[in-house]
Amino acid sequence: MSRLSHAFLIVVSGPSGVGKTTLVERLLASDRLVRRSISATTRTARSGEVDGRDYFFIARDRFEAMKNGEFAEWADVHGALYGTPKEFLQRELDGGRDVVLNIDIQGANQVKRSFPGAVMVFILPPSFNDLEARLQTRGDVSGETLKVRLANARKEIAAGATYDYLIVNDSVERASSELAAIVTAERCRRERQARDLVSELSR
Amino acid sequence: MSRLSHAFLIVVSGPSGVGKTTLVERLLASDRLVRRSISATTRTARSGEVDGRDYFFIARDRFEAMKNGEFAEWADVHGALYGTPKEFLQRELDGGRDVVLNIDIQGANQVKRSFPGAVMVFILPPSFNDLEARLQTRGDVSGETLKVRLANARKEIAAGATYDYLIVNDSVERASSELAAIVTAERCRRERQARDLVSELSR
Repeated sequence: MSRLSHAFLIVVSGPSGVGKTTLVERLLASDRLVRRSISATTRTARSGEVDGRDYFFIARDRFEAMKNGEFAEWADVHGALYGTPKEFLQRELDGGRDVVLNIDIQGANQVKRSFPGAVMVFILPPSFNDLEARLQTRGDVSGETLKVRLANARKEIAAGATYDYLIVNDSVERASSELAAIVTAERCRRERQARDLVSELSR
Repeated sequence: MSRLSHAFLIVVSGPSGVGKTTLVERLLASDRLVRRSISATTRTARSGEVDGRDYFFIARDRFEAMKNGEFAEWADVHGALYGTPKEFLQRELDGGRDVVLNIDIQGANQVKRSFPGAVMVFILPPSFNDLEARLQTRGDVSGETLKVRLANARKEIAAGATYDYLIVNDSVERASSELAAIVTAERCRRERQARDLVSELSR
């Protein structure tokens, strides 16, 4: 199979509890041209985590230096720093591999600025009640935390209106096949095709 | 299954012999939300053809009157007139059915003017030699006709560079699944989703 299109980033966002991780895992399992993004982080490796596979584990002063333009996006999560190195993403794209990133809206907007060709996919719950139920069944959530998460979810969903694609996760099967279809269709988009193709055929 | 997106036209073009008809038939067989476009024509019905299913058979004076704005596209083919009634397309779209049209580049450009949301898909042969071979194996083509068709094909392929999507038909299986993926992905595009969805969920 020839690889005619240019590789691209697939940014997947959506409110907490909507099922993003499952959809990303299924995309990775079904499409071998897509690979997972790897973040750099200042936190220490947990048991079983491998540097360069799960994360790039780096020192805080190195991270601080890289914040000056070397990350496609970065964030402070409870004191630990996480960021996606532009150089990693660019190397994968240059190698013809599409890269999927599961990130929040703030990170997604940052990525889009560095990589304007990124495909932005937002996952929606079938209803707000459904999302509330999913967050509750996670079990580890107090009433107050749940309230905060739901308020955040409302804000996030409103922001989702700016994404390229919206997927309603009312069925994992259907939502997975929609995500896979988006990636396939984007490869067929004219602006991603090797420019040589049409000019070669019409010569 | 809820129908969240707005219906749209799928315009399929490509050089003669590239396999458009097969791909359109496969799309119709695999996606029951897509229906085939029906043309109006001034030619008489052939045996087995049913008015309103295969064509709308209409009188020439009626066709001539409709040429003044009632067709999404029309053409004179060896003296018989063929055209796609806008009213037919609009009725299908209003009913939530996507409509696929297998038409040449001139017709496709006309359709896009009346229906700017139309999804434009161009089918390419894997190589020019391949296209030549396909045209020859059709058997009914003289050397001179073949030359003319190949010259036309070159012009058509150059025009394909303006379409939204390009599909290389090097494998019917792959090309069919790409066309199906394009339709699925387009349904997920934000601008086709019911606007109410996000605003309802984030309320």
